[in-house]
Amino acid sequence: MKLYDLEPSGNCYKVRLLASLMQIDVELEAVDFLEGAHKRSPVIDLNPWGQVPVLVDGEVVLRDSQAILVYLARQYGGHAWWPEGAAQQGEVMQWLSTAANEVQNGPGAARLVDKFSAPLNKPQALAVNDGILPLLEAHLSQHDWLALGRPTIADIAVFPYVALAHEGGIDLSSYTSILSWFERIKGLDNFIPMSGI
Amino acid sequence: MKLYDLEPSGNCYKVRLLASLMQIDVELEAVDFLEGAHKRSPVIDLNPWGQVPVLVDGEVVLRDSQAILVYLARQYGGHAWWPEGAAQQGEVMQWLSTAANEVQNGPGAARLVDKFSAPLNKPQALAVNDGILPLLEAHLSQHDWLALGRPTIADIAVFPYVALAHEGGIDLSSYTSILSWFERIKGLDNFIPMSGI
Repeated sequence: MKLYDLEPSGNCYKVRLLASLMQIDVELEAVDFLEGAHKRSPVIDLNPWGQVPVLVDGEVVLRDSQAILVYLARQYGGHAWWPEGAAQQGEVMQWLSTAANEVQNGPGAARLVDKFSAPLNKPQALAVNDGILPLLEAHLSQHDWLALGRPTIADIAVFPYVALAHEGGIDLSSYTSILSWFERIKGLDNFIPMSGI
Repeated sequence: MKLYDLEPSGNCYKVRLLASLMQIDVELEAVDFLEGAHKRSPVIDLNPWGQVPVLVDGEVVLRDSQAILVYLARQYGGHAWWPEGAAQQGEVMQWLSTAANEVQNGPGAARLVDKFSAPLNKPQALAVNDGILPLLEAHLSQHDWLALGRPTIADIAVFPYVALAHEGGIDLSSYTSILSWFERIKGLDNFIPMSGI
């Protein structure tokens, strides 16, 4: 199984993190982003979107980090990280959407502007961030984990760009429940960090 | 089962559409958005995010339209609309992320600006739109349906805000494969429209 990977990408990191937590062997293929390798063969052939991560596992080729988390959890994790029942899948899925939308476009986008000079609208990113962090804080003040009372791919999907928010100039110090949740995630067996986390 | 609903919301429509296609009875509770009812009890108690749709089915309470699609499909649809296998779930999940992110923040946001004077950045919405529509067109030029070679919740999640793009000033006339896909969706048994579609 091969992951087309970029070290500073929070979306790639979430795949590396779940693979480590599940103790799955994944071969990392570093994609030279600055050289535009994500817009050329072989990456563009595997993912016309020209983005990483891309996972290749035999015949299976997947773009989108949330989709890769669902695949890895379902294929190799029983029901530990991605549940089986309808209500439980719905509960986790809510947070996969949050990861794909508000977390990506809030703290994730703010970081892309500050750290990589991405041509995105920083005020809009901060407005999205200011909407989502209080909701996340309120939820985590009542729950140890985002869904199901235990670690799931909901946590793995949302964690990276929230934990990297400081690289977008976002101060998390008043979000004490979010900070406690970071520590619970970091305390999981086989947790791995990335630069900035 | 009750859906807290707003007629012109594409996210609410996708839930109504799947329920109709699956022939599930859902009681619609209209939320008076202009009066701010989504920010008050009972909606805000069910969904602290203050958004619709919200689905209540017995003990199950779900926000986020993609999560509701997964729940309804899994709970009431066997594997017709949401598959069982890891690779298949991953394939569909890619498009649920696309719906939550690029489709929502591209054509969806452009429409919110034009039709409802939402305080969003229209040029950024159009830039997201201009990124996603060619990828969707290219995919649909090779595939009748977004995933698995058959209609799934991937189609139901992505369809509404693409089909409503004209209300955001977006011209789809050159996207002939997208337009053909619209017709396939509209031809499904028990399809229902919404205003603008």
